[in-house]
Amino acid sequence: MESLYVIKIGGNIVDNPALLTACLQAFTQVKGQAILIHGGGKLATSLATSMGVEQKMVEGRRITDEATLKIVTMVYAGYINKNIVAQLQAKGVDAIGLSGVDGNLIQAHQRINTAIDFGFVGDIDQININLLIELLSKNRRLVIAPITHDGNGQLLNTNADTIAQSIATALASTYHVHLIYGFEKEGVLKDIQDPSSVILHINRLLYGSLKDQKVILDGMIPKIDNAYQALENGVQSVIIGKAEKMNELINGTAGTTIQL
Amino acid sequence: MESLYVIKIGGNIVDNPALLTACLQAFTQVKGQAILIHGGGKLATSLATSMGVEQKMVEGRRITDEATLKIVTMVYAGYINKNIVAQLQAKGVDAIGLSGVDGNLIQAHQRINTAIDFGFVGDIDQININLLIELLSKNRRLVIAPITHDGNGQLLNTNADTIAQSIATALASTYHVHLIYGFEKEGVLKDIQDPSSVILHINRLLYGSLKDQKVILDGMIPKIDNAYQALENGVQSVIIGKAEKMNELINGTAGTTIQL
Repeated sequence: MESLYVIKIGGNIVDNPALLTACLQAFTQVKGQAILIHGGGKLATSLATSMGVEQKMVEGRRITDEATLKIVTMVYAGYINKNIVAQLQAKGVDAIGLSGVDGNLIQAHQRINTAIDFGFVGDIDQININLLIELLSKNRRLVIAPITHDGNGQLLNTNADTIAQSIATALASTYHVHLIYGFEKEGVLKDIQDPSSVILHINRLLYGSLKDQKVILDGMIPKIDNAYQALENGVQSVIIGKAEKMNELINGTAGTTIQL
Repeated sequence: MESLYVIKIGGNIVDNPALLTACLQAFTQVKGQAILIHGGGKLATSLATSMGVEQKMVEGRRITDEATLKIVTMVYAGYINKNIVAQLQAKGVDAIGLSGVDGNLIQAHQRINTAIDFGFVGDIDQININLLIELLSKNRRLVIAPITHDGNGQLLNTNADTIAQSIATALASTYHVHLIYGFEKEGVLKDIQDPSSVILHINRLLYGSLKDQKVILDGMIPKIDNAYQALENGVQSVIIGKAEKMNELINGTAGTTIQL
């Protein structure tokens, strides 16, 4: 089976031109097929500020009212996606940028939550596997913005970590899939104050115990839960670590490897 | 040869939800392959206003400084493109949205003009015909935002009328291409004050004489020149008319038909 790297990068990378360029350089050097999923929350927040649109976050998630949906659609699917694709093209990589709307790539439904109204936030129903395989088969690299749709014309803001996991899982029977989360920390840390305290491998047992000890906290738990969902559904490996070290994350020589 | 309709709609349609929906309905009913190229200048201007970014127009063209390039990339390739694709998907059409960056669809160079500095405005060098044919061959409808790139990582704002003409021309040896410009007027008018004075057919001789008489003025001349460039390069027909009447424009029962 051919290898596929599904790589997610967050808003802190996207917002830092030098770091983004380094990350994209590593992305071009992946051996095998590759899909990049990007966030962009920091730029969305700064655009909202310049437009006077107040942003509300609940449990680390953006409450997406109509004005905010417009902003994230512009920033993620427009500005960030097209700049990343242009940079990759400049490196000689045949990249194509997509949102979840294009070719019905990611169909979702608006989140129903009786306690908190998240607004136009989508939870994923279906990935268009055929489209991904078709585009990858031409040796293209895909760059995906975290905007989905409900099939009735409504765009939805969708968590990029979850999109990465869903795409990795959907393609696990076609490719040997490696899922990589690049973020601002070295990996899962024993001591959140000490970047050198990376836990190299986590299995289920250790994960449970670290959660009990409150070593692994709120922000990290959904990432690791996403990782386990991927591994349980056929993804070969999940690595989480510092985006600056994308080359090492891809080679498996940095970050935390999450295991069943 | 299979028919292909290359349809351009301007900012006045994109900015009017009822009109846009009617246009998209007509687009879904095209018999044959279809590509939609959209502008979006009015929404870009209103976003610029809300962000306090001053817009300068020279000869009807937007001076595209760095802040304005960011705005048009967000509005055209993000907000407008993805909303159109979502609406088409809701109508059961397998649409995919692209900018000129994606898959190196449209490579351009920054306009060199010693008299006026247009900023990040691109003139087209090359259309990736193979990508268009590949995507159309799966019976997808393509929606194209007028953002191109220079191959060195620089995005460029590019005139949507010219993109429509360039794509129509590039595909003229593969398809029987019909190029349609939907805009705010009924077509080319004998009397600009009288919408019923549409000139049904214009040939070269009449065009020259109408220009001499100042019946055809500044805003219309580049559109008709674009049309002639397409016709001279193998495009079968060019029709220009009111976007509200997209069905009739497609059927050839409204607007002005431009002939060699």
